[in-house]
Amino acid sequence: MVIDKPFDSFEIGERFVSRARTITETDLVLFSAFTGDWYPLHTDTEYVKNTPFGQRIAHGMLVLSVATGLSRLEPGWVVAFYGMDRVRFVKPTFIGDTIHVEAEVIDKQDKGPMGGVVTFRQEIKKQTGDVVVSAVMKVLVAKG
Amino acid sequence: MVIDKPFDSFEIGERFVSRARTITETDLVLFSAFTGDWYPLHTDTEYVKNTPFGQRIAHGMLVLSVATGLSRLEPGWVVAFYGMDRVRFVKPTFIGDTIHVEAEVIDKQDKGPMGGVVTFRQEIKKQTGDVVVSAVMKVLVAKG
Amino acid sequence: MVIDKPFDSFEIGERFVSRARTITETDLVLFSAFTGDWYPLHTDTEYVKNTPFGQRIAHGMLVLSVATGLSRLEPGWVVAFYGMDRVRFVKPTFIGDTIHVEAEVIDKQDKGPMGGVVTFRQEIKKQTGDVVVSAVMKVLVAKG
Amino acid sequence: MVIDKPFDSFEIGERFVSRARTITETDLVLFSAFTGDWYPLHTDTEYVKNTPFGQRIAHGMLVLSVATGLSRLEPGWVVAFYGMDRVRFVKPTFIGDTIHVEAEVIDKQDKGPMGGVVTFRQEIKKQTGDVVVSAVMKVLVAKG
Amino acid sequence: MVIDKPFDSFEIGERFVSRARTITETDLVLFSAFTGDWYPLHTDTEYVKNTPFGQRIAHGMLVLSVATGLSRLEPGWVVAFYGMDRVRFVKPTFIGDTIHVEAEVIDKQDKGPMGGVVTFRQEIKKQTGDVVVSAVMKVLVAKG
Amino acid sequence: MVIDKPFDSFEIGERFVSRARTITETDLVLFSAFTGDWYPLHTDTEYVKNTPFGQRIAHGMLVLSVATGLSRLEPGWVVAFYGMDRVRFVKPTFIGDTIHVEAEVIDKQDKGPMGGVVTFRQEIKKQTGDVVVSAVMKVLVAKG
Repeated sequence: MVIDKPFDSFEIGERFVSRARTITETDLVLFSAFTGDWYPLHTDTEYVKNTPFGQRIAHGMLVLSVATGLSRLEPGWVVAFYGMDRVRFVKPTFIGDTIHVEAEVIDKQDKGPMGGVVTFRQEIKKQTGDVVVSAVMKVLVAKG
Repeated sequence: MVIDKPFDSFEIGERFVSRARTITETDLVLFSAFTGDWYPLHTDTEYVKNTPFGQRIAHGMLVLSVATGLSRLEPGWVVAFYGMDRVRFVKPTFIGDTIHVEAEVIDKQDKGPMGGVVTFRQEIKKQTGDVVVSAVMKVLVAKG
Repeated sequence: MVIDKPFDSFEIGERFVSRARTITETDLVLFSAFTGDWYPLHTDTEYVKNTPFGQRIAHGMLVLSVATGLSRLEPGWVVAFYGMDRVRFVKPTFIGDTIHVEAEVIDKQDKGPMGGVVTFRQEIKKQTGDVVVSAVMKVLVAKG
Repeated sequence: MVIDKPFDSFEIGERFVSRARTITETDLVLFSAFTGDWYPLHTDTEYVKNTPFGQRIAHGMLVLSVATGLSRLEPGWVVAFYGMDRVRFVKPTFIGDTIHVEAEVIDKQDKGPMGGVVTFRQEIKKQTGDVVVSAVMKVLVAKG
Repeated sequence: MVIDKPFDSFEIGERFVSRARTITETDLVLFSAFTGDWYPLHTDTEYVKNTPFGQRIAHGMLVLSVATGLSRLEPGWVVAFYGMDRVRFVKPTFIGDTIHVEAEVIDKQDKGPMGGVVTFRQEIKKQTGDVVVSAVMKVLVAKG
Repeated sequence: MVIDKPFDSFEIGERFVSRARTITETDLVLFSAFTGDWYPLHTDTEYVKNTPFGQRIAHGMLVLSVATGLSRLEPGWVVAFYGMDRVRFVKPTFIGDTIHVEAEVIDKQDKGPMGGVVTFRQEIKKQTGDVVVSAVMKVLVAKG
């Protein structure tokens, strides 16, 4: 997402593409450490030999969290993160994959003087073009 | 969530309560750093003086990510994180708040030989008893 | 170790096996950073060419520290970490090795109302079956 | 410890005092994250209200690990960390305590051409002068 | 600095102001850890009682490094970081200070087809308005 | 630099060579995270395929920051980091390069009772012998 203007300036159908970031082994270790989620799919190279993936995969929540950082949020306009709907972890993200975010405004709801909720359809894609995570993101944006 | 048994052993209505973890200033800095989301609501003590919160608040995605680490996931049973529905960031989590997770199985869907999707209603609460994040979590669990 | 019950419930001869974790280059960098121990055996790929190992090795204390996190400690039962005896760094742990912990209760000493000391023989092994660290661990456990 | 010379130059009775480092809340979070040991004595401000300490305490292994980084190890002389005996976690280290290490050479054992084991009695002390951890440390040191 | 356009579009006298970030105790610990610079001015609360500052101060290089992250660098335009001149650590940055960057283009030098060097006078200021670090920054910027 | 003695004891022409440290992928991720500088030259393996380097390069400020940690600064003698002149990022540092610091005292300026400024010419070199960063470093050193 890019949130760099007041609620009233967003238009349904607007699209944004973020910069990209390569997901590294370091990212998997740091996210396991931060969250405490050391599930062996992410952290055990012996265990994953016997899974359909055959290698470690990034935590779904890691990918989703990195995506929020790829968004550009200008100070002053985001009031609060409102919520997410229909988050689906569609394909695995492997060490070495490079992800970016594509988003489109699909709805706007005025909430009165405190702002309005802008709804984005968000797709996190990797270098192959595959969608790895899809989600609907809702952000409370200030008025001008 | 606690996922420590095969799909068939889960029953609708089962409830789990996790251990707790205090959210620290360090957590806010580490999550800003990891994701690249340095939005001033989380990182600028001058900026937040002029917000309704009056102090820094944890990223919604930080709280949700920590919650996945408070879950207990036994190796072998989780096949994949399937998705989330209706995630709502209901109240702010401040530095010093202590959060835990309460979850209840609300649905099961058999997906054939690869396992089934167990659906949990999840509430992340803080020491005051307030819910800070509510969500529906869906996990693909192996069969016995 | 697994400490999930009161002192009185432990029996000499009980055995536990932990989940596993792969030791990564990231772990060596993070532990060097956290402790300030940048000894070149752990951090300098040129230096290690002239050592018997031929590659970087994990800090002994890194392996021992990760092992404490592989243990399962249920809130309420551990009163304090009492001590360790005869810790021996038997073989090197390399980047990419996957370690787990095996432990056996070898002694119990009642310390009165505050609990008792449970003594474990602990072996940290890697995927080859080799023991990399052996130690005797002593934990003060609460009574029921 | 200070290991900045060959095995033969160490003399029984030599003493060393390290620089100091203040243990911070950040250190507790980082060590919990790195090891995966989020035991509530270290991470839950509500839980610790009902413990004898009344506040969070540093992991014993955290203090011992930081102490290895306070040692001065000159490249070339340390062959390997041999082991530890009689490690005792004598008193708690709280957030804000400042620790340093005092060590004394108490034994030397020649191991042939690959070097010899120098044995230190090590005390980790805090700003009050109290010993928080005592241990016997054994290091394999190269010959000149 | 903001580098979001080709070399030819920069004009001498252009000015930029960055967002801000509060420097925390966590930042001091992380930077000490990352660099290995645990000098007691940054890490020892007992030692600093006897210094003119009376409290811990951020590493000069920490402040300068954070400032580069406060800059906005659009992918495609920065070819390389060329250098810095007359960097002066004018005043201390304490834990809790909130810093931002002000920059002005003061020179441009065409370097041929690979781009040109844009020179900025940069001042890092804290919430009081005091300059903590001043520097001249030189960046090689691509042509359109 | 090595600063382990009073201002008066430094002599122009003195030279120092530091220990070395290998720059890892982890270092690039950690420094991007800490500073917030995720410029794709450092973090995007797809983007760098189309740059003259063909691979990710370390941030110039990362290399300069690590160099300060390779210096040996004895508690008591460094009063403050005074500044830097003519910092030039001469060649790229790649993942896997091993860097060390060579420094020479080139000037001394007495500043009265609070100490004096010792000026070093500093070269950061990698394992090939190439200089990657050159700089003039100025440190305020206490008198005896």
